[in-house]
Order: sequence, then structure tokens, then C-alpha cells
Amino acid sequence: MTDKIRYGGDYNPEQWPREVWTEDHRLFGEAGIDTLTVGVFSWSLTQPAEDTYDFTVLDAVMDRAAAEGRSVCLATGTAALPPWLARKYPEVNRTDFEGRRHRYGQRHDFCPSSPAYRRLSTAVAARLAERYGNHPALLAWHVNNEYGGACYCDLCAEAFRAWLKARHTTLDALNDAWWTTFWSHRYTDWAEIEPPSALTEHWKGPDHTAFQGLTLDYRRFMTDALLGCFTAEKRAIRDHDPQTPVTTNMMGAYRPLDYHRWAPHLDFASWDNYPPLDAPPTRPALAHDLMRGLKDGAPFWLMEQTPSTTACRDVNPLRRPGELRLATWQAVAHGADAALYFQLRASRGACEKYHGAVIGHAGRADTRTFREVADLGRELADLGDLTLGARTPSRTALLFDWDSWWALEISDGPSRLVRYLDVVHAYYRAAREAGADVDVVPVTADLTPYDVVLAPALHLVKGDLAARLEEVAGRGGSVLATFLSARSDEHDRAFLTDLPGPLAPLLGIRIDEWDSRPWEVVQPVVLPDGPTAQARLVFELVQLRGAQPVAPYGADFYAGTPAVTRNRFGERGGEGWYVATALDQPGVDHVVRRVLARHHLIGPYADHPHVETATRVTEDGTPLLFLLNHARETARLTAHTTTTDLLTGKRVEAGSPLVLDPLGVVVLKPDDLQ
Amino acid sequence: MTDKIRYGGDYNPEQWPREVWTEDHRLFGEAGIDTLTVGVFSWSLTQPAEDTYDFTVLDAVMDRAAAEGRSVCLATGTAALPPWLARKYPEVNRTDFEGRRHRYGQRHDFCPSSPAYRRLSTAVAARLAERYGNHPALLAWHVNNEYGGACYCDLCAEAFRAWLKARHTTLDALNDAWWTTFWSHRYTDWAEIEPPSALTEHWKGPDHTAFQGLTLDYRRFMTDALLGCFTAEKRAIRDHDPQTPVTTNMMGAYRPLDYHRWAPHLDFASWDNYPPLDAPPTRPALAHDLMRGLKDGAPFWLMEQTPSTTACRDVNPLRRPGELRLATWQAVAHGADAALYFQLRASRGACEKYHGAVIGHAGRADTRTFREVADLGRELADLGDLTLGARTPSRTALLFDWDSWWALEISDGPSRLVRYLDVVHAYYRAAREAGADVDVVPVTADLTPYDVVLAPALHLVKGDLAARLEEVAGRGGSVLATFLSARSDEHDRAFLTDLPGPLAPLLGIRIDEWDSRPWEVVQPVVLPDGPTAQARLVFELVQLRGAQPVAPYGADFYAGTPAVTRNRFGERGGEGWYVATALDQPGVDHVVRRVLARHHLIGPYADHPHVETATRVTEDGTPLLFLLNHARETARLTAHTTTTDLLTGKRVEAGSPLVLDPLGVVVLKPDDLQ
Amino acid sequence: MTDKIRYGGDYNPEQWPREVWTEDHRLFGEAGIDTLTVGVFSWSLTQPAEDTYDFTVLDAVMDRAAAEGRSVCLATGTAALPPWLARKYPEVNRTDFEGRRHRYGQRHDFCPSSPAYRRLSTAVAARLAERYGNHPALLAWHVNNEYGGACYCDLCAEAFRAWLKARHTTLDALNDAWWTTFWSHRYTDWAEIEPPSALTEHWKGPDHTAFQGLTLDYRRFMTDALLGCFTAEKRAIRDHDPQTPVTTNMMGAYRPLDYHRWAPHLDFASWDNYPPLDAPPTRPALAHDLMRGLKDGAPFWLMEQTPSTTACRDVNPLRRPGELRLATWQAVAHGADAALYFQLRASRGACEKYHGAVIGHAGRADTRTFREVADLGRELADLGDLTLGARTPSRTALLFDWDSWWALEISDGPSRLVRYLDVVHAYYRAAREAGADVDVVPVTADLTPYDVVLAPALHLVKGDLAARLEEVAGRGGSVLATFLSARSDEHDRAFLTDLPGPLAPLLGIRIDEWDSRPWEVVQPVVLPDGPTAQARLVFELVQLRGAQPVAPYGADFYAGTPAVTRNRFGERGGEGWYVATALDQPGVDHVVRRVLARHHLIGPYADHPHVETATRVTEDGTPLLFLLNHARETARLTAHTTTTDLLTGKRVEAGSPLVLDPLGVVVLKPDDLQ
Repeated sequence: MTDKIRYGGDYNPEQWPREVWTEDHRLFGEAGIDTLTVGVFSWSLTQPAEDTYDFTVLDAVMDRAAAEGRSVCLATGTAALPPWLARKYPEVNRTDFEGRRHRYGQRHDFCPSSPAYRRLSTAVAARLAERYGNHPALLAWHVNNEYGGACYCDLCAEAFRAWLKARHTTLDALNDAWWTTFWSHRYTDWAEIEPPSALTEHWKGPDHTAFQGLTLDYRRFMTDALLGCFTAEKRAIRDHDPQTPVTTNMMGAYRPLDYHRWAPHLDFASWDNYPPLDAPPTRPALAHDLMRGLKDGAPFWLMEQTPSTTACRDVNPLRRPGELRLATWQAVAHGADAALYFQLRASRGACEKYHGAVIGHAGRADTRTFREVADLGRELADLGDLTLGARTPSRTALLFDWDSWWALEISDGPSRLVRYLDVVHAYYRAAREAGADVDVVPVTADLTPYDVVLAPALHLVKGDLAARLEEVAGRGGSVLATFLSARSDEHDRAFLTDLPGPLAPLLGIRIDEWDSRPWEVVQPVVLPDGPTAQARLVFELVQLRGAQPVAPYGADFYAGTPAVTRNRFGERGGEGWYVATALDQPGVDHVVRRVLARHHLIGPYADHPHVETATRVTEDGTPLLFLLNHARETARLTAHTTTTDLLTGKRVEAGSPLVLDPLGVVVLKPDDLQ
Repeated sequence: MTDKIRYGGDYNPEQWPREVWTEDHRLFGEAGIDTLTVGVFSWSLTQPAEDTYDFTVLDAVMDRAAAEGRSVCLATGTAALPPWLARKYPEVNRTDFEGRRHRYGQRHDFCPSSPAYRRLSTAVAARLAERYGNHPALLAWHVNNEYGGACYCDLCAEAFRAWLKARHTTLDALNDAWWTTFWSHRYTDWAEIEPPSALTEHWKGPDHTAFQGLTLDYRRFMTDALLGCFTAEKRAIRDHDPQTPVTTNMMGAYRPLDYHRWAPHLDFASWDNYPPLDAPPTRPALAHDLMRGLKDGAPFWLMEQTPSTTACRDVNPLRRPGELRLATWQAVAHGADAALYFQLRASRGACEKYHGAVIGHAGRADTRTFREVADLGRELADLGDLTLGARTPSRTALLFDWDSWWALEISDGPSRLVRYLDVVHAYYRAAREAGADVDVVPVTADLTPYDVVLAPALHLVKGDLAARLEEVAGRGGSVLATFLSARSDEHDRAFLTDLPGPLAPLLGIRIDEWDSRPWEVVQPVVLPDGPTAQARLVFELVQLRGAQPVAPYGADFYAGTPAVTRNRFGERGGEGWYVATALDQPGVDHVVRRVLARHHLIGPYADHPHVETATRVTEDGTPLLFLLNHARETARLTAHTTTTDLLTGKRVEAGSPLVLDPLGVVVLKPDDLQ
Repeated sequence: MTDKIRYGGDYNPEQWPREVWTEDHRLFGEAGIDTLTVGVFSWSLTQPAEDTYDFTVLDAVMDRAAAEGRSVCLATGTAALPPWLARKYPEVNRTDFEGRRHRYGQRHDFCPSSPAYRRLSTAVAARLAERYGNHPALLAWHVNNEYGGACYCDLCAEAFRAWLKARHTTLDALNDAWWTTFWSHRYTDWAEIEPPSALTEHWKGPDHTAFQGLTLDYRRFMTDALLGCFTAEKRAIRDHDPQTPVTTNMMGAYRPLDYHRWAPHLDFASWDNYPPLDAPPTRPALAHDLMRGLKDGAPFWLMEQTPSTTACRDVNPLRRPGELRLATWQAVAHGADAALYFQLRASRGACEKYHGAVIGHAGRADTRTFREVADLGRELADLGDLTLGARTPSRTALLFDWDSWWALEISDGPSRLVRYLDVVHAYYRAAREAGADVDVVPVTADLTPYDVVLAPALHLVKGDLAARLEEVAGRGGSVLATFLSARSDEHDRAFLTDLPGPLAPLLGIRIDEWDSRPWEVVQPVVLPDGPTAQARLVFELVQLRGAQPVAPYGADFYAGTPAVTRNRFGERGGEGWYVATALDQPGVDHVVRRVLARHHLIGPYADHPHVETATRVTEDGTPLLFLLNHARETARLTAHTTTTDLLTGKRVEAGSPLVLDPLGVVVLKPDDLQ
């Protein structure tokens, strides 16, 4: 539907007089911007009263876009309520975790169980689809915006009970799943079940619950409840527009919503990339790969990123020269077929007025930000359609599991200091910096394409996963699990077997006990032929039951017991690896590289720690190699094959120097394929 | 009622199928477990609806215990509500300090003023007593569980007003006690009085109140309200079972409840020992002695401790090899006649599933934890009944006063950084490490048995206490008080005299002013023939009015004024000591040893800082000396008398080496008495 | 109305029996105390029920004061409600930011929009004025006490909407001012507008709002609502007492209330001085000058300070010997015509019982505090009326703007770490330590008297201010602005021009972008002929548009771009200075001294950093120079003119040594004028 990587961003001309629109389009032209995300927050404008729709402004925006040759990603705008709606139907305002019914304010604050919200949000979506489904500017539908949060009102309580009936069928089954005999909680009526909140099962916030089964189910329910809002709007659109693709902008590794439950309902994935402050480049890369994994590796859209600075943080650093370009190419390298900004023109008022924009308050084209955006626009235009639809040929999978994330972080014991993302990221980073492409996939994914499966902190093991992991090792592959993996079933009930539960046979170990210590306490773990790693937080005491020790703890009463093990599994040389503690990054790197090396998955530039590599294979089979230099220094590599850099047209001979500027990027196409 | 130290713990077979019960009892046999705490959270099982009781499971548990020769500490189970009760009578759910009415969830969350709760909790207690009062397995009644917290609902407000009328009789008296003319608070109607909460007199949480008198009275009222729940259940039990002893498990130095108000109503004291992380061994020892002090020195039960690890903390370390044994013998050394665990079998689900258990999820006997538990079971069995009923012959008393604790920590000024327990513990620790047995007693205790009375941070001085302390010194004893002692009366009204108020004559000093500084500011205090101590937080400026200076401040404008004083009092060489600032531990040690030395109360092993000593005198008068080596190194002492170690049967000659293993214990019986 | 600096403080004899009153007055005599603040919290006593007034006690207090020759500053007492009132009219209790309706408790907790409160508070004020308007002891009226905080109830919501209608006239104008098209907030009915709270537009507390325009207007409204309480009481007083001056005690740089909106309604300013812990002496000085600026430089009252220690802080240090005297003379040096304490006699109970008092609980005159108070009383009496009405001849103005304070600190981006007061104080301190007298004035002040105008962190530029600042430079003066100045208009809408908005022409610069970094990140800024300053938090990237660079950034990609600039403006040598980052104090000092030096405003003792200078010119034109030595060491100066110290009578020749004791004070009167 397009002949190049889409380029543009959020655009709110309804905030401005028409003469500004003209200036906008002129500047869009200068910057190579072809795609506008429109209408994300215009509900109050398009529907100023329950019985009144007014599309005057939106018509003009759409027509003008079409006239200028630009495409529109059209939002249904249902993420921010109009004031009249919140006043007329107070039920649409959420009740928060503290039990407080909110009143009108902010955005993303609608109750997903509210009938009024459901009726009115689908109605506006239907009206928009009816009106613009065939509009020449229409490129895609953008439902709502950054779904998230949770509601704890009585309507949600009722909906939760219905959801529970569908899931557990009987109260006996639910009592058993949640282990309610503990603390006298055996329910005798569905109506007795309350949402888990500060007024019921929680203390010290959303992560401390008396009944994990209840809290897990509520998070699943809330995921589904919000998803229900999405699918209802999508259905309303489909009634009028049977084919324009529909998406909503997700938020990468966003804990509240299990996006794997959403994935089947999206026509394509899209997400907003605002990496944590000072995060290493593998952090956004992990999110890119997670988003790519939603639709089995299909390309996604980078729906938002800032051209310069955020506003919502305590400290909002400026993107340095070159950083925007590098981040954008990183998105493309990981599977993005669109690169959009929040925002094209800065808001004059309200809480995002300091959020960076392509066009600032003074409306200038001679700012550094505008120049960088425009340069990048030209570069993307020059590349054309080559990468569109290209896929990533990974032989390494990393299992990502929202249930395990939730269960691990709501667990009382052994340690509140372990954060799921930190563990997952350490293993992802190790594999990526070793040069492996990685698919970040749900635990239900088909594992047959993979030689290596990483399962860090996989707290819950559900369904037939253990068997499928054994299959991987059975055909010669490697599986790696870590401390706090395979502890509980889908209801977070402990396995009544030796640990690590259903993975014990594959891993060849048994664990009876574990120590937990504050961050300050460091255990040395001597890795043979490797560094002495620093281990922290959790120290499981592993007994060998077939596995071989790889590296022992160096201190305390369990000095000498293994901290890392490997277990030969099956007839074809497969292995099950286990890391029983939170190793530091060098330790994780060493272990992961040993596993990858077994399958020749260490990349050619793995000794350049700041140079990221990523491969996309185009629809005609051409492998494109992206090299991204995240250092502020020049990177001097030796080319391992002969290629041409698509960004400069320069040819690079195998064996000759391959030089990457500070923050530089090359996109290499094999020469013999050119 | 028993011929050995009771050994066992919390047991919840209702969570498991019958085949697990059989395995349980087999393992109990291996571990020497004779006592099972049953039914703590089984209310929803025994009363699944208001009109339905079902004792099927409990009958089977009790009968099986009896059949196996085990005793049961039977809980009334009223600490965790059944769901139907909370739904049918919403009043039973507490209203919290923030004014929020809770809904069903967690445990320990019932309103003590709720008529429905009172009626139903006493009914179930009565039914249990009626059914099991004569059961052969029944050993003791365990009412509710870990009473605590507070409620602020309208029913509690009404009950509070009634309590206040009984206490103050007239509003004039109450207005005077609370000093209500300050800030225009003179009440003209009892109904105007509100519970002190975040919505009324408090800001920044429960420790910042506009009216300390009100807040103190509410804490006393809440102590009594919860006690009322206990005594109501006990009465219900007594209607059917006139003699089986009744207890409830307390929590040691637990601030919310003044256990001294509870003590007369308990048949014996029992408590759950979960020391703070990395606390020195004197911290649980202080709690043991406080619990022993509840019933005038009678033995108590250690009702709960973990065999391996807790779950509820941010970080839950594992008990190292030997630590469980050492902690258990410490309890016995301080007066425990039972040593029970939470828990015998680990819960499969919910928030305590990672809490340590004698039997883990895999049900194994070959774990380190099970082996240590079983070894200890054998050791206790070998000791037999010798220690049962034995008492501690202390000549040192430490005054512990919940009113002072509360008053000190709700005080605006001079320093929010002073924590009552820290001050009390420092003095307790000093005396204990000097080898003195210490009774931790209420301010109303008979002081005639004591040569030394320590009164650290005794903020309030009530009743005839000052006279009784003068009596101690009058007959030649020593009294030690500290900064922030004797500031106010029982209503926390300042004494209108020189400070330290009614203790000024005994101490021979006058204090007009005091400085307070952040933790970082250190005052050197040079102790003659001792260390230069570091003083912190509060610095009172002492003027001598008869007392002699012992050690001066070394800096600031009050350099040279005394930080420690002693005052000769009476004709028999008694003394009143005063420490005007928060000395560090070496400073406190030095002062306390000087006081103890006056009465020859320094123990023979006082120069071994890690070796704890404790004496219990059996009912036939035999003094047993417990030596506990808290170090991870061997302790080499020289025996000061000839004894036999009851745990090994080895004889130790006076003057010969007495060697304690790392974390080792000996229980020495004088040889001539054997 | 008085022939000396008023001396005394808060006095609550209603808490005590009559014999204590006699003792009080005896001690007042010893201490030179002539003024008593009475009745601040006696509402419940004077009006024990809605229909009952009882002035027995107050009559006695007033008559006794008159009989003893003392004056009374009589409070209306409406800051703390009587219990009956809160119970009878629950609406008077505030609803807090979290949406919780409070119940009776504390003080300063009345809803400003409550009709019952308005009616009853004005009624009691009227009764007092009627009864005591002509009383011989009456000196001044003290309405309420420390107005502050905010309410969010439905009555306030209604009043807010009415206030908004008056301000914005139409919803269209309001929608435009608040930029409501952002996030779909276009209001179609005034009733849709909710107060900005935790339940509506805010998250993470009062400083994070979705709509700054709304939050700013609510703070203005709440300022006005509380002011309405004041003016209503004042009117009630004026109905009976047409001329006794009326004030209320303010709190210096108190963020919640824009005192500049209050200033016209006060007959004189008064305030309570409790400086932050360990604040440099310029911090209370800034507040003094701010308070003096409320009434165009007229003298004010120091209504409260502690004679020794506060109570409400976590740590409450003691005033060292001499500190009270120094702080009191500092107040006089900055314009105080009264020096009053909180409190004369310590409360026996409740939360301020440890707050320092002239007379402590033991009622002694031989305490250090009493002696220092009495010595100071004598000194003030000796000085007589010389300073009364004297004014400060500043040629330097510092613009202080509550709107900018609020806007800066509720802003999302660029940095939550920038605190308005910190920035303002740094510039104020630099000027003061350079020896300049400084008027701290509102942005609407007449700027014609000033050679130098400092505008630090002036986030909003409103009305004709830019033109008036250009006028200052146009006539040869200097204007200095800083980072984050001139960003937005009065509604916090960004200027749609180059930054710094309307100040850009005066400053000769343009700013497109800015970096923000955590506190740990330091930028070196090399000041020519000065120190290398450390810059932090915000780094604006300045482009020169006529200005000259003064000092460049030393690091990062913007190394070399100017951090400080100066711009020649107009024909008469005026200059506009800009500091684009948060320099450390030495950096600010250097820049400010360069600006002051242009106008010969560096004082003669500017090289004595701990010696504060301040000038007051008496009504007959005599300039009095106060020198205050804030160091604990002796200061040795050389007198620059010949003067006599009014406190000692000693003559100091020009050129001869002028010695100030540690914490010492001299008040120098030019010799030729004597």
C-alpha cells in the first residue's frame, strides 16, 4: 500500500487556524513527511454533544491531506472523553485501585465495562468509518490510543465475575485454582468475589496481594476488557470499511496489558518508542522484537517517537545530533515499515507543550531538529521500498511471558528486588551483542525454527511448554532457563515436585532451597575461561541430577555448589542450561555466548560491543545487514563479506576496512545479489 | 501437661487430600513433632454459611492427631473472615486510617466493634469448645491470630466515646487531659469527638497528630477493643471447657497493642518470632524477655518461627546451617516451654507459598531444612522435661512502657528520628552482653526484687512510679534513666516543673533546654576510663543539682556540660544515673557496665561479646546456664564452675577450657547438683 | 501608634489559671514585652455554641493587659473551628486533594466557600470588634491565622465556576486559554469543569496536571477564596471599628497563596519567620524583603519567630546563643517594626508543647532563653522609635511572581528538578552578598526607581512587562533574565515566537532547544575573569541575535555555545543579560556582581561574605546602616565612613577598624547627622 517507509507522525491541526495548516504542509514537504496520524484526541470536537456530530474540521483535514498527497492514519479518538460524556454518564470515569471514583479529567481514563462508553465509542468509530472508509487519504485505522491502566468499579466487578465463570466454570474449580482454603477464603457465591485492590486483597500497592491467583486473573480480565473495547470499535469500523487495516498503538514491554492476548486481533502491530532514560540500545531493541513477535515476525509500525525530547519525565534530555537517525534506523532494522513522530507541531498549551516536535512553537524550519528530521526523510525516501515486508531470520528465540512477569513481581518471596524485565533484558542483550538475531515470542509460539531457546525468569510453566522445550533439546537444540523459572502453574500454584518443576528433567537438577540477599551482597561466580561474575539477589542451591556443573558459587555456606549447570539431553547433543542466580551482564554474556557458540550463532562483529547488527530478508530473499554504531566514537571493522551500503552506495570488499561514523549506520546488501 | 518442650507448628491439612495427611504424620514422627496448631484459618470451612457448621474435616484432623499421639493447639480461626460473612455484614470490614471502608479481603481485617463479628466469632468459638473441649488431642486454645491493626469506622467511633466516658467521666476532665483549649478544641458534646485519623487530627500518617492525648487514648481504646474480642471468645470457650489453657499468639515488641493490658487475660503467653533482618541476637532476646514479663516471669510458648525463610519481606534470606537450632535454644533459654514453627507443610498457593516449611512442596524428608528440624527434635526430646516451668532469676529490670513508646513517637519535637525500641534495645543489649539476666517488665511491676532498674526513654511517668524508683535507690539500688524520660504525665501533658519531672530529685539534675540534630551530626562524649562515645539526635543540656558529672559533651556551645551524670540518693548508697543523649552502643555498654558492676552483676563471660548467657532455675531450684555462641567462629572460654552439658553429657571442670562451636549451644547444669 | 519596636508574642492565658497570668505579666515586665497576640485559637471558648458568646475570659485578658500597660494584637480566632461548628455544619470541613471530605480536626481546615463558615466567622469578628474596638489595650486586629491550603469540595467547585465566568466571560475564551482542544477537553457547559485534583486532572500529586491553565486558575481562585474570608472578616470589623489596623500573619515565600493578590487588602503586612533548616541567612532575608514589597516598602511586623526551637520538624535544632538576637535585628534591618514570638508561654499539651517559648513549662526566668529574650528586650527599648517607619532605599529590584512559581513547578518538561525558590534565591543572595539592598517586588511594580532588575526563572511574562523591562534598559539600566524565563503567557500557553518570547529583543538571543540532565551531570561554564562555574539541570542552547557571549558551555555537543550573554540595548548603555542554565552560587555571584558593578551597586563590605549589610532611611532621612555578622568568628572590617553604633554608643572613624563579634550586630548612624 506504499512504496517507501512511511514517515510522519501525530498531527493536530484542529488546534490551529487554517493558515497554520498551509505552513504545516509546506514544511511536511520539506521534511519528506507523507503520513499523518490524525484525530487522536478530537472526540470533543467531532461529537460536541451526544446527539451532535460535526465533521467540518476533520473533513477539511482529510481533504487537505489528500490534496497534498499525504496519507492519514485516522484515529477513532476514543482515548480521551469529551467533558459532556463524563458528566452525563459518571460511570465512564474509572474507579481506581484505591477505590476512588474519578471525575472528569486527563485521558485514558474510561471504564472498559461501562455500557455508555461502549455504546458511544463504537458509535463514533462507526460514523468515522462510514464517512472516511473510502477517503483517498485513508491509509489505516488507529483505534483509541495507548490502551492501559485498570478500573475497579462495580461494573468491572460484575464483568470480572462473568469472565471468571467462563474461565473456571465452577466455584470449586476457582477455589482450587486460587488456593482459597488458605486464609479462609473459600467462596460460596460468585458475588462474594471482589476485584483485588487496596480495599480488598492488596497492601503496599498493586504488587502485594494475598491471593496471586485472583490478582493474575484480574490482570488477564482487564487485558481482555480493554481488548473488548478495541475489538468492538474494530467491528464497528468493519461494518463500513471491510479492508483498511486496523491497529492501535501499543507500548512495547508494557506490564499492565498482555499484548499476546491482543495480537490476533490486530491487522498489524504498532507501538510508541520512549526508551527509559539512559537505557542501553538493546532495551528499545527488545521492545521492537517483542512487537515484531506479536504478528509472527511481520513488520510493524513505529507509531510514535520523539524527534528531540520528551516532557513527561522528571528530567527530559535532548536527543544528541545523530541519535534520532540512529534510533529510527534501529527500528527499521528490527522490522519497522513506518517511522512516525509524536508530534509534528508542538502543542501551544497543556502538559505536552514541551514535548519535542518536528515543528516548534516558533514554526521554524531552520532548527536543528527540523533539519535532522528532513535529512532523515530524504534518506528514507532514497531507500525506497526495499525493506518493506522484509523479515528477520532468527534461529534464537527468547520466551516472553506476561503471566510470568506478573507472577514474579507480585510474589511474596524470595525477593522483591528481582524485576522480570531486567532478567529478560540481560539475556536478550547478551544474545544480541553476540550478534544473534532474536525472536521474542510468546510461550505458545512454534519453537521448531529455533536452535536456541532462552527462558529467563519463566516463573510459570503452562500447558505443554515443558514438552516443547524438551523437543528443542531433543533435536539437538539448546534451552536455557534461570533462577525462578518453572516455579508454578498457570494459577501460580507451586509445582508439587522437585524444582524446577516440569523443566527439571530437561535441566537435570534439583532445587530445595534458595537464599535471597540485598543488592549490596555479592556472590562471586567463577566462570571457567571467563570472568568472575558478580551474582546478586537470589541464590538457588542446585543439586546435580544428571547435569554437569559449569560454575560454582564462591562464598557463603553454599560455596562450591553450582550456580550454572548444563545438562546433556536426548540423543542429538541437545542441552539444558540453568543459571541459578542473577549474574551480572558479563556473566550472562559469557554463558549465553557459550550456548550460542554451540550453534555457530555468534555474529562476525561480536567483538565490537557497541556495533549492533540486525538482518532483514526482503520478500525476494535478499538479506540486508544493518550495522548500527551506538558509540560516540568511530567503529573500525573488517568487512566479512562484500556488500554495498544502500545509504551511500559505497561498495565494501570482504576483508577491507568497514568504517562506521560515531552513531553511524550502514545498510549492507550482498554484492553478488545486487 | 507435657513431659518435654512442645515441638511442632501450624498445620493446615484442610488444604490437602487425605493421602497427604498420612505422609505428614509419618514425617512428623521422623522429626519428633508432637504438637499441631490447627484451624487458624479454617472458619470458611467449618462454617460455610451463617446457619451451617461443618466439622467433618476438623473432626478427622483431631481424631487423626489423637490416634497418632499428637496434641493440638486448636485455633478458633476468627482472624480471617469467610467471604459470606463480609458480604452479608459489610460492617465487619474495617475502615482504615484514611477513612476508607474496606471490602472483603486478606485477614486480620475485622472491625472489633462490629456486633455481627462479635456474635459470630464467639458463636464459632463456643461450638468448637463444645465439640472439642474434651477431645483427647486438645492441648490448648489458640484464639484468633496475631491480633493487630486498627479500625476507624463509625461503630468504633461510638465505642470509643463510650470508652472515653468510662475513662474520663466528664467532658471537662477530658478537655483538661487532652489540653483542648489549644487550637480551639474544647468539646461540648461527646458526639463531637472523632477517631484520630488522616481525615481528622493526623497528617503525614499515624505518628503526626494535633492532639497526642486523643491519639494515645485511641490506641489504648483499640488495644482494649481487640482485647474485648479475645476475652469474649475466651468466655465462650470457658462456657464449655473450664480449664484447657487459652492463649493467642502475640508479636513481641509490637507497637499497635499494649500487651500489658492483655497479660492478665491470657492463661499463658505465646508469640511469633520473626526478628528484623540482620538484627543482633539481643533483639529477639528482648522480645522473649518482654513476653516472659507478661505473666510475671512464667514460661511462654514460641508459637511461630520459620524453619528456613520468611516470604513477606522484600528480601528473605535463608537461615544458615545451625541458625535455626541456635534461635530455638535461645527461646528456651529465655523461657520458652514450646518451640513451634510456621509452618509444617508449605501452602501450595497464595501469598505464603514461599514461606519456609518443615515439609516443602516436593514433600521430601531429605532436605537440609527437614534434617535440621528433625535433629533438633531429637535434641529436645533428649532434654526431656527439665526446663519446663523453669524461671529466670533476674536482679536487673528494664521498664517497658507502650504509653511511652507511643508518646515518644507521636511527639512533635524534639526529634522524629528517635525510635523507642532502638533506645530500649541499646540498654537491654548492654546489660545482656554484660552477662546480666534482665526482666523486661511493665512500669507497674513490683520492683523490690531488683538491684538495677533501667528506664530508657521512659517518656511518660505515671502513677506512683517515681516514688517506687526512689525506693529502689533508697535501699541501695541503682536507677538509670535517659534523655526524653519523665517528660509528661499519662495524658502526655508536660510536667510543670523542672525536668526530668518527678525523677528530678532522684537524678539530681535540671534540664531547661535540648538540642536536636540530624543523624549525621555527632557529638563526642568522653567516658572516663572508657571509649569516646558518639552521641546523636538529641542533646539535653543538663545542670547539676546534686548529681556528679560522669562524662561531658565534647563539642558545640554546650561542650563541657555533662552528658552522663550519677546522683547519690538516700542513705544506703543508691544512685540515680542519667544519660542525656543517644550514645552509641559502646557508650551505652560502658555506662551500663558501670552501673551493673556496682551490684556485681557483670557475668563471668562478659568479655566474650558473641557468647550469650542465660539462666533458668528449674522448679526444684537447679540453675541451668545456657551459653549460646552467636559467632561463626569457635568460642574458647574458661569454665568458671564445674558443670555438665546436658546436650552432650560432657563434664566441664571449673578452670578448664569450655569450647563452643560456631553457632554452638551448651546447657550447663552445676555438677554438685547432678 | 507606638514609640518603640513592638516586642512580645502569642499569648494564650485562657489555657491557664489566673495565678499564672500574674506570673506571666511579672515576667513580661522583666523581658520588656509590651505586645500580646491574643485569641488566635479561642473561638471555642468565646463561642461555645452557635447561640452563645462568652467573653468572660477575653475581657479579663484584655483588661489585665491594659492594666499592665501592654497592647494587644487581637485575633478573630477563626483559623481553628470549634467542635460544635464542624459537627453541625459538616460542609465547613474541607475536601482534600484526594477527594476526601474531612471531619473535625486540626486547624486551618475550613472550607473557604462554606456559607456557614462565612456567616459564623464574620459574626464572631463583628462581635469582637464591637466589644473591643475601643478597648485601651487594642493595638491591631489579627484576622484568622496563617491562611493556607486548599479545598476541593462541591461548594468550591461551584464557586470556582463562578470565578471562571467572571475571569473568562465565555467558554470559548476559557477553552482557548486552557488550550482544551488538546486531549478532547473542549467544555460545552461550565458545569463540566471540575477542580483539578487527584480525581481529575492530576497524577503524582499537586504538581502534575494535564492542564496547567486549569490548575493555575484554581490556585488563583483559591488565593482569592481565602482572601474573601479575610476581607469579609475585615469588613465585619470595619463596621464597628473604623480605624484600628488589620492584618493577618503570612508565611513569607509560601507557595499556595499569591500574596500579591492579598497585599492591597492588608493595612500592614506581617509574617511568621521559620526559615528552613540550615538555610543561609539570605533565605529569611528574601522573605523579609518579599513581605516588605507587599506594601510598597512599608515596614511590616515579624508576627512570629521561635525564641529557641521549633517542634514541627523531624529534627528541631536549638537556637545557639546569639542567634535569636541576630535574627531579630535582621528582621528590623529589613523593615520590621515589631518583633514577636510564638510563643510567650509553652503549651502544656498537644502538638506544640515542645515548641520553644519565652516562658517554659517550669515557669522560670533563669533559663538561657529567657535571659536572651530579656536582654534583647532591653536593647530594643534602648533603641526607641528611631527605626519606626524607616524605609529601604533599593536601586535593585528582583521580580517575584507566584504565577511563574506555579507554572514552572507544574510544568511537564524540561526538568522537575528546577525549583523556583532556589533560582530566585541564588540571584537574590548574589545581590545581597554584594552589598546591594534589594526590593522584591511583583511584576506589576513600578520599575522606574531601579537601575538593576533581576528576573530569574520568570516563566510567564504577562501584560506590558516586556515593554517596562525594555524601558529600564532604555534609560541605561540592566535587566537580567535566566533559563526558563519568558516561556509562556499568563495562561501558560507557549509564545509562538522565538524564545525567550517577548524578552528576546531586549536580550538579543534566540533559543530553539534545551537539554535537561540529572543533578549529577555538571557542565563547566568558564566565566572570564571569574571562576569556572558548575551548571546543572537545564542547558538552553543560545543563538546570538545581537547579544555578546559572556561565557560558553565547556562540554557536550553544545560546548562553545554561550551559557551567559549580554546585549546592549537602547541608546543609553542599557543591557539585557541572560543566563541560560542553573549556575552554581559562585557563578551567579560573578554574573550578578558584573551587572551591579555597572551601576556602582557593590557595597563597601562586599568582600566580607558573612557580613550582611542593610540600610533603612528614617522618616527624617537619616540612613541607618545595619551590619550583621552571620559568622561564628569575629569580623574585622575597615569603616568606610564615620558613624556611631546606636547599640553601644561607640563612635567609629572612617578608615578605622570596625569589629563585629561573632553573630554580632551594629546599627550605624552617620556621624555628621547625629
